Amino acid sequence: MSAATATSTKGRVLLAYSGGLDTSCILAWLIEQGYEVMCYMANVGQEEDFDAAVIKAKGCGATKVFVEDLQREFVEELIYPAVQANTIYEGVYLLGTSLARPVIARRQMEIAARENCQYVSHGCTGKGNDQVRFELAYYALKPDIKVIAPWRVPEFYERFQGRKDLLAFATEKNIPVVQTAAKPWSTDENLFHISYEAGILEDPDVTPPKDMWKLTVDPEDAPNTPERITIEFAQGKPTKVINTTHGNKEVTGGLEIFLYLNQLARQNGIGRLDIVENRFIGIKSRGCYETPAGTILRVAHMDLEGLTLDRQVRNLRDQFVTPQYSNILYNGQYFSPEAEFLLASIAASQKTVNGEVRLKLYKGNVIVEGRSSKTNNLYDMEESSMDVHGGFSPLDSEGFIKIQSIRLKKWGLNQKLV
Amino acid sequence: MSAATATSTKGRVLLAYSGGLDTSCILAWLIEQGYEVMCYMANVGQEEDFDAAVIKAKGCGATKVFVEDLQREFVEELIYPAVQANTIYEGVYLLGTSLARPVIARRQMEIAARENCQYVSHGCTGKGNDQVRFELAYYALKPDIKVIAPWRVPEFYERFQGRKDLLAFATEKNIPVVQTAAKPWSTDENLFHISYEAGILEDPDVTPPKDMWKLTVDPEDAPNTPERITIEFAQGKPTKVINTTHGNKEVTGGLEIFLYLNQLARQNGIGRLDIVENRFIGIKSRGCYETPAGTILRVAHMDLEGLTLDRQVRNLRDQFVTPQYSNILYNGQYFSPEAEFLLASIAASQKTVNGEVRLKLYKGNVIVEGRSSKTNNLYDMEESSMDVHGGFSPLDSEGFIKIQSIRLKKWGLNQKLV
Amino acid sequence: MSAATATSTKGRVLLAYSGGLDTSCILAWLIEQGYEVMCYMANVGQEEDFDAAVIKAKGCGATKVFVEDLQREFVEELIYPAVQANTIYEGVYLLGTSLARPVIARRQMEIAARENCQYVSHGCTGKGNDQVRFELAYYALKPDIKVIAPWRVPEFYERFQGRKDLLAFATEKNIPVVQTAAKPWSTDENLFHISYEAGILEDPDVTPPKDMWKLTVDPEDAPNTPERITIEFAQGKPTKVINTTHGNKEVTGGLEIFLYLNQLARQNGIGRLDIVENRFIGIKSRGCYETPAGTILRVAHMDLEGLTLDRQVRNLRDQFVTPQYSNILYNGQYFSPEAEFLLASIAASQKTVNGEVRLKLYKGNVIVEGRSSKTNNLYDMEESSMDVHGGFSPLDSEGFIKIQSIRLKKWGLNQKLV
Amino acid sequence: MSAATATSTKGRVLLAYSGGLDTSCILAWLIEQGYEVMCYMANVGQEEDFDAAVIKAKGCGATKVFVEDLQREFVEELIYPAVQANTIYEGVYLLGTSLARPVIARRQMEIAARENCQYVSHGCTGKGNDQVRFELAYYALKPDIKVIAPWRVPEFYERFQGRKDLLAFATEKNIPVVQTAAKPWSTDENLFHISYEAGILEDPDVTPPKDMWKLTVDPEDAPNTPERITIEFAQGKPTKVINTTHGNKEVTGGLEIFLYLNQLARQNGIGRLDIVENRFIGIKSRGCYETPAGTILRVAHMDLEGLTLDRQVRNLRDQFVTPQYSNILYNGQYFSPEAEFLLASIAASQKTVNGEVRLKLYKGNVIVEGRSSKTNNLYDMEESSMDVHGGFSPLDSEGFIKIQSIRLKKWGLNQKLV
Repeated sequence: MSAATATSTKGRVLLAYSGGLDTSCILAWLIEQGYEVMCYMANVGQEEDFDAAVIKAKGCGATKVFVEDLQREFVEELIYPAVQANTIYEGVYLLGTSLARPVIARRQMEIAARENCQYVSHGCTGKGNDQVRFELAYYALKPDIKVIAPWRVPEFYERFQGRKDLLAFATEKNIPVVQTAAKPWSTDENLFHISYEAGILEDPDVTPPKDMWKLTVDPEDAPNTPERITIEFAQGKPTKVINTTHGNKEVTGGLEIFLYLNQLARQNGIGRLDIVENRFIGIKSRGCYETPAGTILRVAHMDLEGLTLDRQVRNLRDQFVTPQYSNILYNGQYFSPEAEFLLASIAASQKTVNGEVRLKLYKGNVIVEGRSSKTNNLYDMEESSMDVHGGFSPLDSEGFIKIQSIRLKKWGLNQKLV
Repeated sequence: MSAATATSTKGRVLLAYSGGLDTSCILAWLIEQGYEVMCYMANVGQEEDFDAAVIKAKGCGATKVFVEDLQREFVEELIYPAVQANTIYEGVYLLGTSLARPVIARRQMEIAARENCQYVSHGCTGKGNDQVRFELAYYALKPDIKVIAPWRVPEFYERFQGRKDLLAFATEKNIPVVQTAAKPWSTDENLFHISYEAGILEDPDVTPPKDMWKLTVDPEDAPNTPERITIEFAQGKPTKVINTTHGNKEVTGGLEIFLYLNQLARQNGIGRLDIVENRFIGIKSRGCYETPAGTILRVAHMDLEGLTLDRQVRNLRDQFVTPQYSNILYNGQYFSPEAEFLLASIAASQKTVNGEVRLKLYKGNVIVEGRSSKTNNLYDMEESSMDVHGGFSPLDSEGFIKIQSIRLKKWGLNQKLV
Repeated sequence: MSAATATSTKGRVLLAYSGGLDTSCILAWLIEQGYEVMCYMANVGQEEDFDAAVIKAKGCGATKVFVEDLQREFVEELIYPAVQANTIYEGVYLLGTSLARPVIARRQMEIAARENCQYVSHGCTGKGNDQVRFELAYYALKPDIKVIAPWRVPEFYERFQGRKDLLAFATEKNIPVVQTAAKPWSTDENLFHISYEAGILEDPDVTPPKDMWKLTVDPEDAPNTPERITIEFAQGKPTKVINTTHGNKEVTGGLEIFLYLNQLARQNGIGRLDIVENRFIGIKSRGCYETPAGTILRVAHMDLEGLTLDRQVRNLRDQFVTPQYSNILYNGQYFSPEAEFLLASIAASQKTVNGEVRLKLYKGNVIVEGRSSKTNNLYDMEESSMDVHGGFSPLDSEGFIKIQSIRLKKWGLNQKLV
Repeated sequence: MSAATATSTKGRVLLAYSGGLDTSCILAWLIEQGYEVMCYMANVGQEEDFDAAVIKAKGCGATKVFVEDLQREFVEELIYPAVQANTIYEGVYLLGTSLARPVIARRQMEIAARENCQYVSHGCTGKGNDQVRFELAYYALKPDIKVIAPWRVPEFYERFQGRKDLLAFATEKNIPVVQTAAKPWSTDENLFHISYEAGILEDPDVTPPKDMWKLTVDPEDAPNTPERITIEFAQGKPTKVINTTHGNKEVTGGLEIFLYLNQLARQNGIGRLDIVENRFIGIKSRGCYETPAGTILRVAHMDLEGLTLDRQVRNLRDQFVTPQYSNILYNGQYFSPEAEFLLASIAASQKTVNGEVRLKLYKGNVIVEGRSSKTNNLYDMEESSMDVHGGFSPLDSEGFIKIQSIRLKKWGLNQKLV
């Protein structure tokens, strides 16, 4: 029995651990408060030295450390349904942080159940979206779980009022601190995106410095020669990427496709965003984001839907499922009856979305150059043609318009518009 | 009295005339059928030799020709409310053709009323959207108007089965034909956009040739140095553009701002689009579009709304007003009780959208570099900050989450998810 | 070979036949035009002497007559999903005519395919909804079918301008005419409802005469003693009715339950409606309806959803699925990708709607007296109680309200409302 | 200076006072805590002895007591816009409690501002909707107000765990207690409705006792003879009621009409409801309601909209404005930018809703017997007629259907449905 366990009287906590200063201090503080602490690290594709973090967590007194590779389920269970639904928040944000939370929380609850942890803890602040996302997921998945959110515990946040207090505590507790200058913003990274917020970005009129952007090259520095690819989709999910510029290299496999598109998008400066958004709790907040592969997939998928999805299904899905499911993700309600309800719709909408899209990637642009579908015949070249009388008589349009006009004529008579 | 009038026994027609081969043949054919024909040309910013067209129309037998400059009302009455509402069709198309139709149709009805024309006529085909848009507008504005749509009249479309037949008829009627090679696609142009469709574009997998694009330079050929501008908005409409790259040049005035943004966007390769869309009548159709200024304004306006528009108003407007009003425009129902109903909402949503957005234009990209608002205080830097306890206690978030979780815990208990 | 077949040169028609004057004349007229005609009668629960109608059709020259009992599929495939979705048109109309059309059209297309009929025909007028509903179903189910709609064929409708012309033609063709006085309105009946429209009802301010109503007793004449029943539901569909007033009589079976509820509702004056509605084609029209069992089931199902359906699922379903699916039914687009898309949602919404509702039926009223669910625990008596601190602390509400107020305070500061 | 003021050191509170045991104890407790307390009573039409309550409040130590008659603004500013919008919560509940909250909270904030009260207080529990409704209104109207909600203050709710504790405290403080047996449920009453919840009603399968219902007679006990009235509307608001059964008695005036309809509805057993609803905080709750006049007005207004409102405006309003505005009212967000946004829509939708509706009131039923409009011509008897070719040719319907079928045929070809 470790020293930590010996003195822990309050029960066992599974802490979502990042390896950084904050969660290391939380780890030490929880032990100080009398808890046994196990650490949990989710690999969702962020740049991280997991081995070093494990050593650090154990050094701080964690009785166990779990490092879980969730990349594949993140891509296949969360990202691709979001691609199918064209999810987007407030018209611009691709929901990169929100999308990772469900897989992270789910594994944390599974481990908490297996390891008999009565508590879970995280390092989210008390003003952001992530506390909501994690905790709503925790409670839905394991309604009896108890959550310790130190940044909402007065004893904690009053003691640690700034970085200096944390550093002092780290020294006291022999927590190793990496000697890099702190960036004047905070980030959240996974394989779908990286976010930047807080610090100098809090002034929404401050242009982010060029060296902030980490994942993508500046469009101005991207290659002068475009790169061309073809993406194949089945039922709205990507199944193959072919790089027609570079030897028709083919990539298949859910995770592999995503990582390869990330690589291409990063090289070509694709996926940057700088916005002011509305957090769930009603505060406006400025965020910068890089979403490389996600940006390409959004363009390609929406384009293919033009060719392969029925007008009315698209219309209903766009008006209803896309905004509602986007809000659900943003607000942390993925594990909910309403998400389950909407996911049934999303699947139902994608049956016909099969085919391929040809793209040109160039200095921040994702340019569609053509699309085709072998199995879907909703597009009918002859019927569409202005030159041929395919499918219906022009006289039909006459009746169509006349019937549509009945109601408008009645209204016009009242208005005397001209 | 002209020869035309002398022999016209069927009444007077006001023909929407373009100066091209089709409507010139329609003009001659209507006269042949026994109508007196007046011609109407709307200047909505398209590239056109109006003087030559007037001469041509008169030469073909038009008893009067009206050329109407509608550019300012087009920008101020149609385009800017669309900017306010972020209108977009099927997630991608900025509705450039649809937006011009109401002003064109309205003036046509005004002239028809003034000149006692019992009939109006147009050159739209029987398979497209424009016939619907024009005629629904005609009927709403002047419910007793009679419409002659030759491309839906069997005597006409059976006689003129192709360009060859039209050319032969033009020769017969002494209609001058411009000796340029016909482009293998058709276009519709106004100051908001140009569209390309039909011909070689009917195969949705054919990449448009580089020389098709007329308004914008290819992003690959655009300047290597970015251009920076600031756009000021009042109640969601642009009121000033400042070019910070070029001597802080300032442009004001609704039409003037729009034309200046067009110029900048065209130079920087901004606003190209290539899609398959769903026409109102249920046919899928491939279209390519250039919408230079409209693309810049969309980015800038949506960004400013992030800073200045309430979360819930934005959410409701996005879910409802934007898609419905976009569909109404696309489907040609601008003159309708439902458009009137929605326009009241659009105006109500924009009261707080005041401020300015700083943009970088670069090779097809419109990049936001910052935004600010002197009069709007919905963004609160202190409250937004992760570092300061502004506005509310972290403990409040605890209660917020707990209450949100009540329902989800109940659901989770039923699901036994972990 | 019959005489009819011998002379039919234009092909074979499957006519939707009602046994009445109109479709008998259409039958004779089609034969006169040179078609072979088979007749099809759908039994959807209307009051009808099918045997007499078969004899009449054969007498008029039909080469075959098919009478198809569609009552069970009507109830189970169309009515119960509508109950699940709480479908209603314009807030009041329960869609009784619309709901029957898909099963009628589907069987007609199956028979047309089997009997090699190139044509189908029906007796719908050219101004109503039913022509649209039937024909859109025909075209979706069998895109190559050809439709003859005599009331839209000038040779027909100009020849038969009124009932007198039809009677004269009937005499000429030896079609037997029942010597009852024509009612001054027209009706459409099936087991779900009866509709009354046209004739004296066209003045929307004329109160329908007491003897018009056919299915239900006048509430004023209904029993003075209420009748009490319990309806059990599984996944939103009724599975049992128990009449607690009359010896706990139990009825099970989809069709049987529906017919029994009809009987109870008719006796108790339940389900009358008198409205002005908007037809699909844009005309306003006055209709009166009796929907006995449907009215009871709507009240009971909605009540049970209060107990058993999650708040957000209900909210999303109500805002989206219910109105859209109702419009789809009304507008005749049941066989469509959008209906298929929405039906997936409806099924997904009803998983938890299990339990029973106790009702009192009394003189037009359907009064809920209680509801319960053995398997669904979303309702939690302790948590709901105002007297007990169940499930959460009152302090949580404090935080919930404070967080909700952040945004409103910001707005209030701008408004200076007090 | 009163004793209370002399010892109040914590500031001045304006307490929403009901005259009952709870708020009297809160009043005494606040004084005990060191506050000066003023009392505020809103007359929104509930049955109440205001004079007695004023005496009681002063006896308990209130330094001032304000009784405010808000009936007219309640009817004209809150109820009639709700009638215009057909607001309804979860398809059944007419929002009677929610509708009164804004006028009550607004006057309370006005008085708090005028009387320099730093605090407001109310007697709402910590699990209900009303705490949210009152406090969100307070914060929006006066963002710096401080709220004391005793039922969420541990010192209070732990001390007063049941009615017995309150009675003991009342005795201690010399608060007079009315010696009536407490009803086994709690109520909220105003001129729009009364609600019953809690107590024996918490079991959703318990039928409310006959003597619970206070406002309306039991339909079984209502007159055996129906009563007929005509309601006139202008822009969707009632302007006159004529009782055609009783001497054509006419009532005009916003408040007067409402009170008269209440009287008629109460006599005829109209407006009872028994449901399980979802509270804003996510708890399911059983409530019984009586909404007499509101029930009549809903039927009449919706009926008149059938005659006078355009199909598309109605459709858009029903899908969007009605559910959203209903939720806003229920969730206590009347003072919000989103309510302001929607109210602009509601007004815009009602311009044409002018005319009158004839109703029969009978034992719980509100039966429409006819409707007419002198100024609105959207209903066209000739066009609507099935017998006359008014307004358009049947051939137009042919084209309308053919165009609608294009998309469905394409889908049908893929499905091979028959």
